[in-house]
Amino acid sequence: MLAHTQILSDARQNIISLLRSTPLFKNMPENVLVHFADKAQTNSMQKGNVLFLQGDSAEWFYLVERGWIKLFRDTLDGTQAVFDIVNAGVIFGEDSVFGQQAYTYSAECVEDCNCIMFPTSLLQFYLEKNQQMAFNMMQAMAQRQNTQSREIEHLNVQTAQQRIGCLLLRLCPTQQTENISLNLPYDKNLIAARLGMKPETFSRALAKLRENTGIEITGSKVTIPSIQRITDFTCSHCSQSFECNNI
Amino acid sequence: MLAHTQILSDARQNIISLLRSTPLFKNMPENVLVHFADKAQTNSMQKGNVLFLQGDSAEWFYLVERGWIKLFRDTLDGTQAVFDIVNAGVIFGEDSVFGQQAYTYSAECVEDCNCIMFPTSLLQFYLEKNQQMAFNMMQAMAQRQNTQSREIEHLNVQTAQQRIGCLLLRLCPTQQTENISLNLPYDKNLIAARLGMKPETFSRALAKLRENTGIEITGSKVTIPSIQRITDFTCSHCSQSFECNNI
Repeated sequence: MLAHTQILSDARQNIISLLRSTPLFKNMPENVLVHFADKAQTNSMQKGNVLFLQGDSAEWFYLVERGWIKLFRDTLDGTQAVFDIVNAGVIFGEDSVFGQQAYTYSAECVEDCNCIMFPTSLLQFYLEKNQQMAFNMMQAMAQRQNTQSREIEHLNVQTAQQRIGCLLLRLCPTQQTENISLNLPYDKNLIAARLGMKPETFSRALAKLRENTGIEITGSKVTIPSIQRITDFTCSHCSQSFECNNI
Repeated sequence: MLAHTQILSDARQNIISLLRSTPLFKNMPENVLVHFADKAQTNSMQKGNVLFLQGDSAEWFYLVERGWIKLFRDTLDGTQAVFDIVNAGVIFGEDSVFGQQAYTYSAECVEDCNCIMFPTSLLQFYLEKNQQMAFNMMQAMAQRQNTQSREIEHLNVQTAQQRIGCLLLRLCPTQQTENISLNLPYDKNLIAARLGMKPETFSRALAKLRENTGIEITGSKVTIPSIQRITDFTCSHCSQSFECNNI
């Protein structure tokens, strides 16, 4: 019995520390975090599992613990428009507390994932009651708004090559400046969809980016000889210079 | 003296009723609206006037009373990325109360404009003090987030022709379904920039859209023979069917 209690308590502590590291729950008092942890459900899902569909009643919001999750909408003719792919530490579905209380997009696992689910009604309760929660929510929304408007900027003024370059730069470890090796986080077709390109456009742009910046891509492995060469090529068509933290 | 007081009072009443019609100030108590109106400054500006530049200290936020205002960022190589063009009834610059308290974009009049300016410090004060203000701010931000993610969707999956079709649909009066005449709100080069197209891409796409949907454009005058033909052509590549209210 004691062991079981200990496991429960460890799981709860884990959820509390994960919550505390998100912008939404930063500086929230311990009792609020405990309340959310007590109402949480953990969820292990396989690649391809759908968490929710656009229009579903939004009873839960999600915190990713492990894996990549695709946020998308289906157009009326059945094309999938991927507008974000999120991973560990990211909260999503929480924006459904506003408006119609239904999800405004769909979510699907790109690979095996662990998520923690929390009732949106609990978030609603604290947003109304707790000034810090409301302030955090606004901060998090302002950050996302900024990211989205930067993305619109890139879609408007960057070439396909530059958009791929930008994605690669954001995957790079910040300390290194030369001879960087990294793995693409998900498959190339999904990267293409995320960047708003057809797979053939993506392949052509990637080949040109290789010529222009010296990068090499074999399967999911990417080698970048010089960060400077990619930033020279990519970041001149952005309003922010590398290293940009808020996109 | 009485006449002067009356003018002041009329101007204040005008500001109060303009504020009340925005999502941010909806349902706010009269005394709060009066407080904002008392601290407001009205500003008449000519085409080409810059209201603020990205990075400027964000002391004021703006409510458009008349005219179109372009929100944009300059990329490092000097290209202007237009990410929104707003008009009467829209508030902007208010998002600067979060983060670095500096504007994250620039704003410039596209034509002669009237704006009303309010101190961001006053907004900050009420966001911390007033639950309704915080709730309204979150609602307004959620709405903008939704609009932006729909725009990313369109940039990802719609063709240039469809993006122009979508813009025209949003300019149409909602009651009419056939033989609609309307005027483009600002010049074609700016429409092209707003839609993330080079002027020559815009012209080519417009010519094709004319063939596909029967629209006619002469100067700034647009004639649309049938809403159905444009929605069939455009809205199949969107996750929402016409008539969409939230974009």
